[in-house]
This record gives sequence, structure tokens and C-alpha cells, in this order.
Amino acid sequence: MRIGVLGTGVVGKAIGGKLVELGHEVCMGSRSAGGEAATAWVAEAGAGANEGTFSDAAGFGELVFNCTPGMHALAALGQAGAENLAGKVVVDVSNSLDFSQGRPPTLAICNTTSVGEELQKAFPDARVVKSLNTMNAGVMVDPGAVPGDHVVFVCGDDEAAKDEVRSLLGEFGWPAERIVDVGGIIGARGTEMWLPLWLELMGSLGTAQFNIALVKA
Amino acid sequence: MRIGVLGTGVVGKAIGGKLVELGHEVCMGSRSAGGEAATAWVAEAGAGANEGTFSDAAGFGELVFNCTPGMHALAALGQAGAENLAGKVVVDVSNSLDFSQGRPPTLAICNTTSVGEELQKAFPDARVVKSLNTMNAGVMVDPGAVPGDHVVFVCGDDEAAKDEVRSLLGEFGWPAERIVDVGGIIGARGTEMWLPLWLELMGSLGTAQFNIALVKA
Repeated sequence: MRIGVLGTGVVGKAIGGKLVELGHEVCMGSRSAGGEAATAWVAEAGAGANEGTFSDAAGFGELVFNCTPGMHALAALGQAGAENLAGKVVVDVSNSLDFSQGRPPTLAICNTTSVGEELQKAFPDARVVKSLNTMNAGVMVDPGAVPGDHVVFVCGDDEAAKDEVRSLLGEFGWPAERIVDVGGIIGARGTEMWLPLWLELMGSLGTAQFNIALVKA
Repeated sequence: MRIGVLGTGVVGKAIGGKLVELGHEVCMGSRSAGGEAATAWVAEAGAGANEGTFSDAAGFGELVFNCTPGMHALAALGQAGAENLAGKVVVDVSNSLDFSQGRPPTLAICNTTSVGEELQKAFPDARVVKSLNTMNAGVMVDPGAVPGDHVVFVCGDDEAAKDEVRSLLGEFGWPAERIVDVGGIIGARGTEMWLPLWLELMGSLGTAQFNIALVKA
């Protein structure tokens, strides 16, 4: 399918690259077309990869990934244009990590709301699904790189949109039983507030290539 | 050893009960001595169990568990008395869940600080270790009730205090390799901010008797 990927950072490149590899057509969007990161990615990803503005990418995609930093996601989606997002599944992968006061970062948006909820509120015609934000980019698109029955979360208010995302996650390599539904888009509060512990664990474990598995009685 | 347990809720009773079972002497502390919950617990727990005020319990213990709700922890430890906590390991098990605006609860203290940090700041002579707050009371004191290599976190600024807590966790049934150190007491931010996702997962999994395992590449 045609997919827009907003953001040219590590996450955008990993997701965009995987999608191209899977045979999708991808337009990577950034603030202005022809930027260095996006053009380098297009050259590397090869046939099926294109780039343009946030608006170009959102207009191109039948589905859109938000891979911009959470602090800038509302602005980026504003530049993408509400009309280019209307009716489309928007997979929000972002976290609002704020490093402006040093380390550890805080979350710019949390507790009483979340980036996922704010995006859904600002773009009510988009079908926002929060997913993949709880792990390193490498694990998102290659879950087999980490052993064990570790999980990925999805949440969103539109059940059909969540099904579309489950299907894409399946293409990424996530077995259905390891895709854990945490309800409506309000569930993004929990998955985003996981980030501080994720960062601490990256330090304790000495690697970003980890994830969590759920075990129950 | 002699242990003070502040708080008469589900967590205080579970931890107090386990400690008595293990042969420790426990004084359960609450706002006023002779309260219904504490006296019922003493009757149930049997020999080795006593109760009194927060101050009685903290004075009695060579080590103190804070099992009061996070929103009231500072006040409870204030009533316990800085002089009764000085030099002692204080295991903070609390979370600042605030249900006053309905569900889902928010955290009264988070992001730029944590209950663990606030307690350490307010009682600089106490040796605060945050632990056990990331799971249900039943799992805290009986990790074998949940299958798999699930984990418990510890953090705190005093390494020797963390060692004492590791030892008690071992008595509870936690193997050393499943006790994950997330650094200084600042690590409490992450373990406390895990709670919103924990609550969502309790809903998704249909049980509170669950925990997380860590897997890495």
C-alpha cells in the first residue's frame, strides 16, 4: 500500500525502510522537501521510496506513520494538513521526551493526557492508533532480534484502524498473540509513561535492544 | 529482625503477613493505635505481629516499609518521625495514584520527581529504597504465584541499603537475578510512572496477578 512516514529520524528511517522492504510504497515527509536525511534515506531504501514535505507524505499515504518527536508531533501533523489525514489511519509512534533540562528527560505531555490523545483531539477525522513507541526502533521492525514472547501494544478509539495496524505489525514480524490491546487512545498515557522506566532499563541492561514480556498467573 | 510496616491496606497487610510468616517481628503502624484494620491483622497474623501508631511502628523497626498511599506518604512518614527513621532503611512501596478525578487515576507526583525522591529529600537521614511498587501485593510476597522470569526493581542512593532490601526480597522468594537495579532513588520516577500501563494491562489481561519479564538481544 501507499504509506506516508512523517519524520526522518532513527524511527522514521527504520519504519520506512522496513515498509519498502515489505513492498510498500513510502513517502517520507519532513519540514521541507529535499532535505539531507530524507534524500539519503531514499537513495538507500531504493525503489518504492520517495520523500517530500509533511503534506506531500500525508497526501501520498493511504496510511500515515507519525515518527516525529512527540514534542513536535502536533505541529508536524498540522503541516501535514488535517485534510490529508482525514479518514486515514495515523499510527503514532512518538514519545514526548524533553531533554531540554538535561538527563533524565521528562515527558512534555503526560499523566492527564498523552501525545496520542492530543493528536486524536486535534485531528478528529484521523483514526489515531498508538503503537510501537515502547521499544527501540530496531526491535519495532525486527521483533525476532530479541528472544522470547515480548509484546507490542496498540490502542485507539477505532477498532477497524487497530485491525489495520495489527496487520502491518504482523508484516513486521509480530505474532498476533503478542500484540496487546490496551483499549482506546487514552491507553497511550500508559504506553508513553513507560518511557522513563525504559530509559532506566536501557542503562541497567546496557542495551536498547530489549523489550518486556507479560506473564500472568 | 524487627520491622515497622506503615499502612494497613492490602499492601501493608500482605507484606506484614509475609514478614511474620518468615519469622520477623512486625509492628504495623497507622494514624492512631488500636484501629480496626490493624487489630484484625494482628489477630490474623499471630505471634510476632503488633500494631501501634506510625511513630510506634517506625520506632520499633530496625527497617521500615512504607505501604501508605503515595499521596499520603510524606504526611505518614512525618507522623512516624524523622528521628525514628534516621539511619534506617525505608522501603517505599507506594504509588501516588489519585482517583479523585475518577478513572483512570492520575499520578499526584510524577515526571519531574517521584514519591521515592520526595521521601528521600524530606527525610535525608533515612535510607530510602524504592521497590515492589510495580506489581500487585500478592505477587510482591509470592513471586512463584506467577510463572516465568518476571522481575522486581530496586533503586536508591545507598548501596548497602539496597543490599539489605535485596536480601529481604530473597526471603520473599525473588531470585537475585530477577532483582533489577535501576540506579539511584531518581529511578523511582520510572517505576512509579509504570503504574498507568500496569492498570491498563490489568484490564487487558483480566487479572492483577501478572508481572513483566525483561528480554534482551
